[in-house]
Amino acid sequence: MRTPPSHKVRAGRGRASGTTAPLPVTTWIARKRDGGVLDDDAIRALISGAATGRVPDYQLAALLMAIVWRGLSPGELGTWLDAMVASGDRLRLGDIAGVKVDKHSTGGVGDKISLCLAPLVAACGVPVPMMSGRALGHTGGTLDKLESIPGFRTALDPRAFARVLAKAGLVLAGQSARLAPADRILYALRDATATVESIPLIASSILSKKIAEGTDALLMDVKVGRGAFLPARAQARELARTLVALGSRAGLRVVALLTAMDQPIGQAIGNACELAEAIDVLRGGGPADTRALTVRFGAEMLILGQRARDLGEATRKIEAAIGSGAGLEKLRLCVRLQGGDVRVIDEPQRLPRARHQAVLRAPRAGYLTALDAGALGRAATRLGAGRARKEDRVDPGVGITLQVKEGDAVERGDPLATIRYSEQARFEAVRAALEGSFTVGPQRPRARPLILERIA
Amino acid sequence: MRTPPSHKVRAGRGRASGTTAPLPVTTWIARKRDGGVLDDDAIRALISGAATGRVPDYQLAALLMAIVWRGLSPGELGTWLDAMVASGDRLRLGDIAGVKVDKHSTGGVGDKISLCLAPLVAACGVPVPMMSGRALGHTGGTLDKLESIPGFRTALDPRAFARVLAKAGLVLAGQSARLAPADRILYALRDATATVESIPLIASSILSKKIAEGTDALLMDVKVGRGAFLPARAQARELARTLVALGSRAGLRVVALLTAMDQPIGQAIGNACELAEAIDVLRGGGPADTRALTVRFGAEMLILGQRARDLGEATRKIEAAIGSGAGLEKLRLCVRLQGGDVRVIDEPQRLPRARHQAVLRAPRAGYLTALDAGALGRAATRLGAGRARKEDRVDPGVGITLQVKEGDAVERGDPLATIRYSEQARFEAVRAALEGSFTVGPQRPRARPLILERIA
Repeated sequence: MRTPPSHKVRAGRGRASGTTAPLPVTTWIARKRDGGVLDDDAIRALISGAATGRVPDYQLAALLMAIVWRGLSPGELGTWLDAMVASGDRLRLGDIAGVKVDKHSTGGVGDKISLCLAPLVAACGVPVPMMSGRALGHTGGTLDKLESIPGFRTALDPRAFARVLAKAGLVLAGQSARLAPADRILYALRDATATVESIPLIASSILSKKIAEGTDALLMDVKVGRGAFLPARAQARELARTLVALGSRAGLRVVALLTAMDQPIGQAIGNACELAEAIDVLRGGGPADTRALTVRFGAEMLILGQRARDLGEATRKIEAAIGSGAGLEKLRLCVRLQGGDVRVIDEPQRLPRARHQAVLRAPRAGYLTALDAGALGRAATRLGAGRARKEDRVDPGVGITLQVKEGDAVERGDPLATIRYSEQARFEAVRAALEGSFTVGPQRPRARPLILERIA
Repeated sequence: MRTPPSHKVRAGRGRASGTTAPLPVTTWIARKRDGGVLDDDAIRALISGAATGRVPDYQLAALLMAIVWRGLSPGELGTWLDAMVASGDRLRLGDIAGVKVDKHSTGGVGDKISLCLAPLVAACGVPVPMMSGRALGHTGGTLDKLESIPGFRTALDPRAFARVLAKAGLVLAGQSARLAPADRILYALRDATATVESIPLIASSILSKKIAEGTDALLMDVKVGRGAFLPARAQARELARTLVALGSRAGLRVVALLTAMDQPIGQAIGNACELAEAIDVLRGGGPADTRALTVRFGAEMLILGQRARDLGEATRKIEAAIGSGAGLEKLRLCVRLQGGDVRVIDEPQRLPRARHQAVLRAPRAGYLTALDAGALGRAATRLGAGRARKEDRVDPGVGITLQVKEGDAVERGDPLATIRYSEQARFEAVRAALEGSFTVGPQRPRARPLILERIA
């Protein structure tokens, strides 16, 4: 139209050379907006331009929304992923023998599986190079849980990462800023522009980091249900299929399990308390569902790592690694190599624990028909177990310990959960939401499966 | 997902107070992305946040793409428009008697109608407060054409704008930066993010400036055809209907005409040469189509301005203002009041004229079946009549003068157009495109109407 566009939109982050010809970014955005397909050169220029700042955030934001709208074809997505990986370093773990297998979850409540899983898989001879994330939204983060161990270092440079992996057979670290930097920039932008919810963008974000970290195979835990990032099963299935196909195209073997995230996993929701529950599993205890998921995931990873031929053999090996304490020893070694206080393994009372505690009790007799994982996760976050804003500090000692799970019978006044908290005001602020997370009804609900589907 | 979003996206332009609570912009973007409706408070905060910089460009860009995708409901659009107007000053022209009527076009090639139209309407007693734009893309701009008059000032402050209008009955100026600043910011962003093509965004952009400029009524010329911004008739009609309905909601009477923009209007394409053609019309000459559009538009504006009851009466009045020279006198007065050299009115040879000229000739005998307005507009732009980039300067003396129009018969070697240019290289660069703009065929094409539809 005729408006004189005299307002100058800001240029890019300005790290690019001033002499380069301008990229036809507007034309590319228009093509995606109109449902067209971007060619490889355009995708490479956009992703590298995101990483270098040559393409400004506002153009990336419009492009991302057009992708939420129109999607990416398998060909586009493959190029997109390759370009994300190429935007940074790529760890070379070739010196470490064996098929390396990592596990990644789309995010759950009470999901401490990685903490017991990785040591068990490593104890069975499969190297586990694990780069994890922090608490986000209502879901917990493996890094935050690990950092409840005094001294434990999650920020490892590539050399230290490879050294711990070589010595312990596992390494539990945060993502290096030098791996897939385009993903970090795009993710922050997606978070601020409501463009997170796109299956191809989610899939490429996950796999770019896993490919850059150097793993050979990946077990994906795609959560389904009201506590999950993608609650609907159809969407979760689509993400799982996209991950498997995209991984295969990029040379990464991916197996995806769709698992239930309606109620939290196990009993503990928080950081130190979840670590303690994971240690219980490695000692042969722990809640039934935490244990069952750990064993099944571990078995899948042994097959991916070519240390077992089938689920039966793989399951027996994981169970043996629990029974023998070999998994626990692997965790101990990893904690020591990463600078943590190994005494917490045998003396969990050394872990941080919030000063105050309160017990939530059943308002009437009946059966627990629902424990709302989303609501419990949000309550734990507000108690300090997660972050409302990215710069918030996590309080490792707060958390919720469930005394009941779906299907359990209670009498009026029976304890439902123990809440550990540091600030009375924060507890008061979530008390009603906590109470509302438990539904007690007259009839015992049907038991629901933990593992809903396997996609490979 | 679990990615640690450690990359900080930039904050807003930082002109806002640091103590204000953050706006839930991401939630609003998500609502529009999912096809929902934004409430009035959200729209007001977004538009005022665009103007103040409180909402950063990348969030606006994602929102704009979501609006291209999902549209705006009539209620949302009404609030959007009000907020755009409220983002800046609003001229008060209440002291000036009469119903003030402006005219706006979606942009054409050879479209000098405003230059002869405004003086004629003013001569019939309807005040014309006209704020125009500059050349954009392949379409010309009234401001650039006016500035081919030595000394003519298009940048008027509100006081000067009202004074010229009061004295001359018309004023021909550029848009003040203080009117609808949110539109200027959003427009620049849309231009860079491929989000221009949205009917509600186009309609609100046009009307925000017209309402802020203080006009009571507006004649909209919505172009259709290969030289138009929206080539398809259905889209042009949707824009026209949106403009009429949105204007009515905001208290601005709008009549829209859909007019043909397949071949250029009249003979001249450029700046000084288009002004000369407009003066010819005011003297009772000029090409038939330029004259016909001027008379019809003028008649519609007299009815809007309540100076005529029907098209017949209105047409006679406009034609009388041509015949008496009253329109020409109005232009002379306006040029004088805005600092221009009035001698150009009687001595058009004083207008800038490029040094070189070339004649394009018919390659064979036959009938002109097409003169591609888009291609001719792009060629004129590349000769210097328009801008490839916003910071380019317009060369007022270059242009194309058509010797033929669609339906004309030619012999081989007959002149088709005269090209005036300043740089040989620029001419050589467009020569082939110019030749390709004319199609000579064996059969006389059917005459096509200029005015396709009236929507009120």
